[in-house]
Amino acid sequence: LSQGLYVQVRRVLHQMLAADIALLLESSPPSTREILWQLSDANQHGEILDELNEEALASVLKMMDAEKLASTAQNMDVDDLAYVLRALPDSVYQDVLQQMQSQDRLRVEEALSYPEGSAGSIMNTDTTTIREDINVEVVLRYLRIKAELPEQTDTLYVVDAHDQLVGDVPLTTLLTVNPNLSVSEVMRSEVSTIVVDKPVQDIANLFGRHDWVSAPVVSAHGILLGRITIDDVVDIIQEQAEHRMMGMAGMDDDEDTFAPILTSTKRRTVWLAINLCAALIAASISNMFEATLAQIATLAVLMTIVPSMGGIAGNQTLALVIRALAVGHINDNNSKVLIAKEAGIGLLNGMLWASVVSGVVYFWKGDWTIAVILAVAMFINMAIGGLAGVCIPLLMKRFNIDPALAGGMALTTVTDVVGLFTFLGMATLVLA
Amino acid sequence: LSQGLYVQVRRVLHQMLAADIALLLESSPPSTREILWQLSDANQHGEILDELNEEALASVLKMMDAEKLASTAQNMDVDDLAYVLRALPDSVYQDVLQQMQSQDRLRVEEALSYPEGSAGSIMNTDTTTIREDINVEVVLRYLRIKAELPEQTDTLYVVDAHDQLVGDVPLTTLLTVNPNLSVSEVMRSEVSTIVVDKPVQDIANLFGRHDWVSAPVVSAHGILLGRITIDDVVDIIQEQAEHRMMGMAGMDDDEDTFAPILTSTKRRTVWLAINLCAALIAASISNMFEATLAQIATLAVLMTIVPSMGGIAGNQTLALVIRALAVGHINDNNSKVLIAKEAGIGLLNGMLWASVVSGVVYFWKGDWTIAVILAVAMFINMAIGGLAGVCIPLLMKRFNIDPALAGGMALTTVTDVVGLFTFLGMATLVLA
Repeated sequence: LSQGLYVQVRRVLHQMLAADIALLLESSPPSTREILWQLSDANQHGEILDELNEEALASVLKMMDAEKLASTAQNMDVDDLAYVLRALPDSVYQDVLQQMQSQDRLRVEEALSYPEGSAGSIMNTDTTTIREDINVEVVLRYLRIKAELPEQTDTLYVVDAHDQLVGDVPLTTLLTVNPNLSVSEVMRSEVSTIVVDKPVQDIANLFGRHDWVSAPVVSAHGILLGRITIDDVVDIIQEQAEHRMMGMAGMDDDEDTFAPILTSTKRRTVWLAINLCAALIAASISNMFEATLAQIATLAVLMTIVPSMGGIAGNQTLALVIRALAVGHINDNNSKVLIAKEAGIGLLNGMLWASVVSGVVYFWKGDWTIAVILAVAMFINMAIGGLAGVCIPLLMKRFNIDPALAGGMALTTVTDVVGLFTFLGMATLVLA
Repeated sequence: LSQGLYVQVRRVLHQMLAADIALLLESSPPSTREILWQLSDANQHGEILDELNEEALASVLKMMDAEKLASTAQNMDVDDLAYVLRALPDSVYQDVLQQMQSQDRLRVEEALSYPEGSAGSIMNTDTTTIREDINVEVVLRYLRIKAELPEQTDTLYVVDAHDQLVGDVPLTTLLTVNPNLSVSEVMRSEVSTIVVDKPVQDIANLFGRHDWVSAPVVSAHGILLGRITIDDVVDIIQEQAEHRMMGMAGMDDDEDTFAPILTSTKRRTVWLAINLCAALIAASISNMFEATLAQIATLAVLMTIVPSMGGIAGNQTLALVIRALAVGHINDNNSKVLIAKEAGIGLLNGMLWASVVSGVVYFWKGDWTIAVILAVAMFINMAIGGLAGVCIPLLMKRFNIDPALAGGMALTTVTDVVGLFTFLGMATLVLA
């Protein structure tokens, strides 16, 4: 990005999609990010901001003053505006609000009136509505006068005089029916709606099950408030998936790939602290058997194998159960079947690997007693690991803890403690 | 499900959505699954089959004979049919084919002519096409005669006499323009298309970036072959996310929650075998220092802490990098910045936790020498863990190995080996 290239970069940026520029910004270290932002088309700024992930968004917003932000906000959809403004610190937010015209200020207040994570916070208010007593012919003429429909419109909503939703007419119907029929004759009157305070997680499932492209959002009294479109739902699905994956490693799914070192270090500290506690618990178990370890050093060499295999067996079950919980496979009736199944797999795999390991260790160390103790400890630990892999997420779910976040650490602590305790405990009883 | 309730269950099932019945089947153990399948509406069977995951699908297909399958296949979309038939064993597949009428057989052959995982395998062939030289008015009349448009149609495609795609007209345009204009005047002539052999992974990214609801699929020569709709893309996105999450635990993402115990045990065996090798490598490192361990048993108690903290630090970085690779944040230019950043975080976190741990251990064991050795080993291992967390997935990517699948195991082996070697090695040099 030497000086002579600025003009060229600007030209390339102006031809790119907002989503691609957002990706480019997320892929750039902070200094490059600032230059790219300055060179990009100000008309695209609103769209780009909406496509950025939360942390990259915060870093870009820092480069903008209140005035610029206010003018960018003018061209944005209500749902996108809400996303961007939620990322602002309170003081800046007040500044931005003062720079806006009163009409825009109303839109902002509307956008922020629904709690984050509710249907209202991701809905668009640009619905196209019609009345049921008019003819399709009239609707067609009305649309031609309007000359433009909002993006991703696939359905017109039929409302009564009180904005109550009474039905909908897909564009495909509008195009294929006899224009002399009335709207009430062609509309679908049983419309599935989303109530405005429904959590976004449930909305993603609804779209997936019904193959919707858009769905109307209504108040508790059935008043049409807006619509949710599939592009926002795809974003939610991707965020949820990232959250599960990153959460399993103790990471925040909003973490910016190129966040400053100090910020990232601070964020990861909590998880490392929790792990240190878990590791110290495991160490205190071996500490109970320090005398035995002093007597037979071979035990120290072999003792890490038992928790390791139990942890892997348990983690396999855990991943299966977390997935099953996420897609809704598990209910009160079948959880017992699942526990029995996973315990069975744990027992089988435990037997198999206990035999293999005892063979390997006998071959390596030439000591049958230690080999058998190791095999028994591994068998117990793998069976318990499988069982814990089902029970821990089910229990966490009951207490409203996210198993994708805390499940792995809890499981590893269980298999570490059980593995070390059974192996060293039996060795102490038999050998010491 | 006692006998008297069959009638009621049947009634409830007949009122449910296909997607919900599929979920119910996936959530049921094999015996219940068979009963539910028999009681469900045969007219819905095609849709239900399409909604099932691969393993549940295979188990349901086993309950159907070739004749029933052939009649179910008649009502299915080409892309759904391809998905179902791919799950059949070869011998059964031939039987089903013979039961079909010649017209259906042609559709099947078409459905299976595109390789699995390509755009062709998920496309629908039910496109609605128009010519560019006619008036919008004529198009509107044509649609009224057709009386119905395929599900999720949001765009008509404009083709020439050779079926070459020359443009498209969104339904929203069709409804808002002057009907006296010709199609060529209102169509968008720069249409983004998907070539039929494009891998499905790339298609999901395209839909996300462009906010598409559907997109045309063309041959290498630009001939319109079909279209891909957002509902299929949402399925792909969810599958990819599951694949990443399950893969990290060494699981197959198709694994049925209620698969038979023996099948599941066999599947998980490979991963346990790999982990056993990793655990044995770690054990052989401690084995090198058996003499030191025999001398000072405290080392055995503390030695598990070092690999554990290094593993967690490395895994955090790994999750970040796998996510960044999946969304396309990483390229040749910025990978060095990322390596430097993650190494920096590793050094900082290493310093922090090395100090904490040495304090805890001094307080616990009252031995400054061991505390300092532990701190130095942990510092080195966390720094290397962070570095390995970036380098391992980048290297794997270069050699076309899926880092979501093998990355965690490789990383843990590195941090185990480095952690044990530095801790026990330094202890041997200083204390033994």
